[in-house]
Amino acid sequence: MLNYTHDIPTVIHFGKGQISRLDESLRPYGKRVLLAYGGGSIKKIGLYDEVMEILNKGGYIVTELAGIEPNPRIESVEKGVELCKQNGVDVILAVGGGSTIDCAKAIAAGVYWEGDDLWEMVTSKHGTLKALPLVDILTLSATGSEYDGGGVISNMKTNQKIGKSFTFPAVSICDPTYTFSVSKYQTAAGSADIMSHILENYFSRTDDSDLADGISETVLKSVIRNLPIALKEPDNYSARANLMADSSIACSGIPAYGKQGTGWSCHAMEHQLSAYYDITHGVGLAILTPRWMRYILRKDPSCTGRFVRFARNVWGLDGEDEQALAMAGIDALEAFFTESGIPMTLTALGIGTEHFEDMANQANGGGRLSNAYVSLTCEDVVAIFHDCL
Amino acid sequence: MLNYTHDIPTVIHFGKGQISRLDESLRPYGKRVLLAYGGGSIKKIGLYDEVMEILNKGGYIVTELAGIEPNPRIESVEKGVELCKQNGVDVILAVGGGSTIDCAKAIAAGVYWEGDDLWEMVTSKHGTLKALPLVDILTLSATGSEYDGGGVISNMKTNQKIGKSFTFPAVSICDPTYTFSVSKYQTAAGSADIMSHILENYFSRTDDSDLADGISETVLKSVIRNLPIALKEPDNYSARANLMADSSIACSGIPAYGKQGTGWSCHAMEHQLSAYYDITHGVGLAILTPRWMRYILRKDPSCTGRFVRFARNVWGLDGEDEQALAMAGIDALEAFFTESGIPMTLTALGIGTEHFEDMANQANGGGRLSNAYVSLTCEDVVAIFHDCL
Repeated sequence: MLNYTHDIPTVIHFGKGQISRLDESLRPYGKRVLLAYGGGSIKKIGLYDEVMEILNKGGYIVTELAGIEPNPRIESVEKGVELCKQNGVDVILAVGGGSTIDCAKAIAAGVYWEGDDLWEMVTSKHGTLKALPLVDILTLSATGSEYDGGGVISNMKTNQKIGKSFTFPAVSICDPTYTFSVSKYQTAAGSADIMSHILENYFSRTDDSDLADGISETVLKSVIRNLPIALKEPDNYSARANLMADSSIACSGIPAYGKQGTGWSCHAMEHQLSAYYDITHGVGLAILTPRWMRYILRKDPSCTGRFVRFARNVWGLDGEDEQALAMAGIDALEAFFTESGIPMTLTALGIGTEHFEDMANQANGGGRLSNAYVSLTCEDVVAIFHDCL
Repeated sequence: MLNYTHDIPTVIHFGKGQISRLDESLRPYGKRVLLAYGGGSIKKIGLYDEVMEILNKGGYIVTELAGIEPNPRIESVEKGVELCKQNGVDVILAVGGGSTIDCAKAIAAGVYWEGDDLWEMVTSKHGTLKALPLVDILTLSATGSEYDGGGVISNMKTNQKIGKSFTFPAVSICDPTYTFSVSKYQTAAGSADIMSHILENYFSRTDDSDLADGISETVLKSVIRNLPIALKEPDNYSARANLMADSSIACSGIPAYGKQGTGWSCHAMEHQLSAYYDITHGVGLAILTPRWMRYILRKDPSCTGRFVRFARNVWGLDGEDEQALAMAGIDALEAFFTESGIPMTLTALGIGTEHFEDMANQANGGGRLSNAYVSLTCEDVVAIFHDCL
């Protein structure tokens, strides 16, 4: 078990009606609020009106940043930073899914960035020293952005999608009823994202971190149990609530405590797909993950034991032939994604081979995948992309 | 799944050598430190010298409070508060197990208590408004006091042992190597305490909180796997590390997220045993828990399903007769405690029936156990005590 530091200052108010905590969550920070949100779904479900009523009643001065993209772009960050500076914003309120919260985190840090170019902040190796306080209201169970410090920002000019630690939310209001109206497609994609956050840590060379592995298996089994219910009964509170709780823990770093780093291979590869084709992140992960699994299991049979554990503890499979059992676990994962309605090939998304080499080079930038759970070269990444066609 | 708020501000530095973070952990709060510790085991393992070297090098002004009792007493709290006031202490550094940390929490809050009588603070229904910052170095895996806000203080004059939320540690340094020298008896008792913190939440009327139940089963299985290793090989790092991580999560409240309250029946009963006989808390819990389980299973068959889950998911048992399976899980728990070397009867501790009625009345003070997982009367508690003889 390796050393780690647990340092997550975020307060979560979880459950029905927790928006009643919004005023007390914002109040310590000041009156000038940047209200950040996405494409308007929060208006459709009445959440925008509810938020505005609370803000107006509380005497807050609101500046709006609407239209944050599903893969949030550097231009939105620039716009947000400008609005904060112009209006002397005290606190950012992000209402939406991971993209909105990620963008808000970058804005919060960007306000104090001393350079001219905010893309330099995103690509810089330096950590954030100071950021505006951030409160969020979550409307999608997926990225875990409500309980971590990271954000992923895209630059469509350079075909780059880069994750960085900006700042933790001070408060996240997680009300599962706000996800009742999320489409089947986005519900499934979000769940694939949750599972991927777990799997990227679960497949590690450390075998003795009981808590991390047990929490990982718990979250995977919870998604396997609750996603089909949420797809069938979109307003099943219990299913939506479990998916939301799973979302927060999955990307918190807790499932990695005590474990050796793993390279997050599928995220490294998927970020290229999103950067080049602007696809839904969770869909890209669902397509890549089983192919990556089969590829590394062939390449390095020493990871068979971990795949056997995955098949046994997560899927409840059994059998004496370890190789067959390992493969059966991967097959079960792919079948689960397929049954959840996720298009499971790149071809189905209209993606061909034309950028495979460039994307592989970027995924493996600086040779970062050579230290992955199973070391990958650019040729390996291209081969995995081909397996996804 | 019920609503909850997650708000744990404590930073944990976990692993070998994390004492290197001590200076940076104290520094933000000031130079005047109250160093609180217990019976001197920290001197035997060299930790006291190591801490003093860091404090001296950092130019801290140290006031010592030594000799905090295993069931920390109100007199120690009074002494600590006086020392803090006399010396203008800025921050408390607690080095020890849960008792030392609990006492330090009460001192931290007590410094700002406006009344004359600190026992009134402990028994008061009012929460802590302000407390001195607290940093701790953990030396025993048991109470989880390193990652919660609560403390339990005893008053031997009134035979009361009362738990209350005082303040969270700002930083906990959790280095498993400091537990290598913990005796087999205390290692087993600490593990029983960890398991009890889980079991008090696990047996709840809420069945759909996947994360809470999965984390609970993970911690129980981890203790079942690692305690025998730690007893056999006291310096097995991996076993000690897992028990320490289990300790922190078990009492954090996280295993109760989304779940209905349960009354913490075994803790309510055990606190009376400790208050009257000053026994080791974990030993009292180990004795009570299987007897409580059999009693409530007989009293209310509607909890059979949960006991069957316990037998299956925690002990890996199976069988068609649900009642037999439920009992087998309880038997497995009792056998595990026995094999761990815990004296499993009150008689073995020299406790007779003389105070059973008084203790039952106090355990059920204000009828609090009528809202337990299975409602208990004073007569029920007396009967459970008898089953423990």
